[in-house]
Amino acid sequence: MKHSAIKDCLQLKKKYDEEVTICGWVRTRRDSKKFSFIELNDGTCFASIQVIADAEIETYQNVLDASTGSSLQVTGILKESPGKGQKVEVHAQKVELLGIADSDYPLQKKRHSREFLRTIAHLRTRTNTFGAVFRVRHAASFAVNQFFNERGFVYLHTPIITASDCEGAGQMFRVSTLDALKPPLNDEKQVDYTQDFFGEETSLTVSGQLEAELFASALSKVYTFGPTFRAENSNTPRHLAEFWMIEPEMAFCDLQGNMDLAEEFIRYVITYILENCKEDMEFFNKWVEKGIIDSLQDLCKSDFERITYTEAIKALENAKKSFEYPVKWGMDIQTEHERYLTEEYLKKPVFVTDYPRDIKAFYMRVNDDEKTVAAMDLLVPRLGEIIGGSQREERLDVLKKNMEKHELDEATYSWYLDIRRYGTTPHAGFGLGFERLIMYLTGIENIRDVIPFPRTPGNAKF
Amino acid sequence: MKHSAIKDCLQLKKKYDEEVTICGWVRTRRDSKKFSFIELNDGTCFASIQVIADAEIETYQNVLDASTGSSLQVTGILKESPGKGQKVEVHAQKVELLGIADSDYPLQKKRHSREFLRTIAHLRTRTNTFGAVFRVRHAASFAVNQFFNERGFVYLHTPIITASDCEGAGQMFRVSTLDALKPPLNDEKQVDYTQDFFGEETSLTVSGQLEAELFASALSKVYTFGPTFRAENSNTPRHLAEFWMIEPEMAFCDLQGNMDLAEEFIRYVITYILENCKEDMEFFNKWVEKGIIDSLQDLCKSDFERITYTEAIKALENAKKSFEYPVKWGMDIQTEHERYLTEEYLKKPVFVTDYPRDIKAFYMRVNDDEKTVAAMDLLVPRLGEIIGGSQREERLDVLKKNMEKHELDEATYSWYLDIRRYGTTPHAGFGLGFERLIMYLTGIENIRDVIPFPRTPGNAKF
Repeated sequence: MKHSAIKDCLQLKKKYDEEVTICGWVRTRRDSKKFSFIELNDGTCFASIQVIADAEIETYQNVLDASTGSSLQVTGILKESPGKGQKVEVHAQKVELLGIADSDYPLQKKRHSREFLRTIAHLRTRTNTFGAVFRVRHAASFAVNQFFNERGFVYLHTPIITASDCEGAGQMFRVSTLDALKPPLNDEKQVDYTQDFFGEETSLTVSGQLEAELFASALSKVYTFGPTFRAENSNTPRHLAEFWMIEPEMAFCDLQGNMDLAEEFIRYVITYILENCKEDMEFFNKWVEKGIIDSLQDLCKSDFERITYTEAIKALENAKKSFEYPVKWGMDIQTEHERYLTEEYLKKPVFVTDYPRDIKAFYMRVNDDEKTVAAMDLLVPRLGEIIGGSQREERLDVLKKNMEKHELDEATYSWYLDIRRYGTTPHAGFGLGFERLIMYLTGIENIRDVIPFPRTPGNAKF
Repeated sequence: MKHSAIKDCLQLKKKYDEEVTICGWVRTRRDSKKFSFIELNDGTCFASIQVIADAEIETYQNVLDASTGSSLQVTGILKESPGKGQKVEVHAQKVELLGIADSDYPLQKKRHSREFLRTIAHLRTRTNTFGAVFRVRHAASFAVNQFFNERGFVYLHTPIITASDCEGAGQMFRVSTLDALKPPLNDEKQVDYTQDFFGEETSLTVSGQLEAELFASALSKVYTFGPTFRAENSNTPRHLAEFWMIEPEMAFCDLQGNMDLAEEFIRYVITYILENCKEDMEFFNKWVEKGIIDSLQDLCKSDFERITYTEAIKALENAKKSFEYPVKWGMDIQTEHERYLTEEYLKKPVFVTDYPRDIKAFYMRVNDDEKTVAAMDLLVPRLGEIIGGSQREERLDVLKKNMEKHELDEATYSWYLDIRRYGTTPHAGFGLGFERLIMYLTGIENIRDVIPFPRTPGNAKF
């Protein structure tokens, strides 16, 4: 079925007076006595193209049958449009009705709530908002891969099914092929996972970082970009049970180099989206989050500040502002604090570094003060934390002590310790949730609306 | 830690007589009275760089301590090398020992079997073979994303956890947070999945195709590239329980257009790898699969043949060859048959089309003869099937009948049927297993050796 993308017609990759064949779905149709006007959209770009069908054409009955949502193939001549808001229109010579939309088509021309559209996630991509979201999501994915590829990072597919993270089992999904009703039991009357598919208990991964460290210890620079999972019973606009994470990891790199990369990364992805998704971003700017384009451009132009956690706590203590969570050295910095720091105190993106050891993960590198670790979070206006990372503990003895402190079993992580035994290196990396990045780029407020088919407590539809 | 990639030094992005700092792991060291020679590798490219350290330098003891596998930071002068097999060497001024490798480092200079290396998958990436494999895997991933991006396809992240494919439950991994030992039971004394995390029984996806069809019905062209799962108890060199799949899907596309895309895709990825991974491919060509570069170049130059299943069966019946599986219209074409067709009968890549309806999936479009479906498999020399796809059944009534025949529940697939109710389109797509593509590109014969951490029956290590 040779046809042209509507995007190519609108961008005049086809010429005026050229015959074109286009396919798409009817957004609206207006009929006058002598003509019908159809807005046809094929999802290749935000805009629809206007098709004008003379009532005299042989296939005009197809036009009259083409209800909203129906799919058409139209052959006609590309013409300069006299109408406002469009440069181009198609004067139809032949209209073929590929598929009619039943009259109960749920996307009739009117505003639908995002909540309602979530219940028809298989169709919502045909709306302006969701078409734009998923084109931006695509462009951001490509930007991520291109950014790392250009810088010599190797894309690493870390395993989804894992036996090694089981320590944090409370928030993990179990993966099994055992009989769910009557699982085999061992001598201790516990489920006998030695009889399970993998011969031990397995779960869905919560992060590819540990495996990324292994690969960085051979290839220097790697990154992951794949699905990760949390079995948290959180029904909030910021949580998903299944989401995509990006995790670069670099050997021969310290916390400073890690921040340099994070900064370059954020600027790169934003610049790419502003350049490559103009029409979609204008829609978000007008209808979803007013001023988002300026806000993103500002971020790209800003200096990124770097302050320590201890400095951040002092700033929060001195703030003439009351916070829901009281401020005290040693606490977790909450979103309200993050937003104050970046939006009001510094008015620019800021890396907060060197967090208290006790509130951070076992693998973060202990600073010389022995109280803090070489961690960093990047905070940005409108969102708060967008990236979290650290230099990793490369010293075998220190790491072992940390694991003991966190009650982690050495034997389970012997492979992780091995890379400290055999040519260990200072290394660092960070992680960011891809959906939160898309929320930040589009202004969409609910994380369920930036992933094709969201998985949340009680919902695994489609 | 400012330093240069060894790749950049070897490719002379740094200049002769320039001071450089490089980091990497010691592959070998030779000492003479006055000098030591170190082969240092950082994984950024296949080759190591030769470091020459004069016994007179202040940090020479670090050189003597640097056993195989140890990590070093070397600052020195880039020099033209008088030796054979290298253009460049580094004359060390300062050598810092970042991490020593314990004496039980398992990758001492000797040949290791692939089986052994699988048991140390966290370290095997430091070998020639696996460094090359994972750089090629990266390059192929990037080529895949670039191919589709250039052609206006939207990258779609389809869900990993799914409630909808449960029909083929036998080969699926169950995902649950219920108490494994004492799951809650319903009135029928069955496991009560309404109390599970998602409120129903869920599994790991076996394919993103159905969801890709939904998105193609809004954005025209989409593709997936993500992990998929089979709980098959197959311990063969060609099966993994977790592997990555690529699945493009196009609206307004028939079987011919589908084959055109598949052909273009294969040529593109091969060409990209031959151009961008020269050194790694030369290694495979010499040590893993002799002649593989010629074989890949031949494929790119070949015409791709297109024959029907019925023609293929006739050719097999007429073959002067005995097959393990007897040939008969209606049978599945086995690997032995595939290889005969592409290697001996046609001596080129071939699409076999229009398979018997009874051996193919419910979603494939029924041909006018009502006996065959618009399916296609691409067969290539050395491998057999590399791509499988079809035009999809877009006619609601025919699809419903097919589902009935396959005993599939309409209600479970209502969303899938909806896109046939609302502006259905002729559409088509294909799938290919990414690991099989990497095997084809590298000549590596066991699928466990082309994925970072393989998941197979009894093995979920790392």
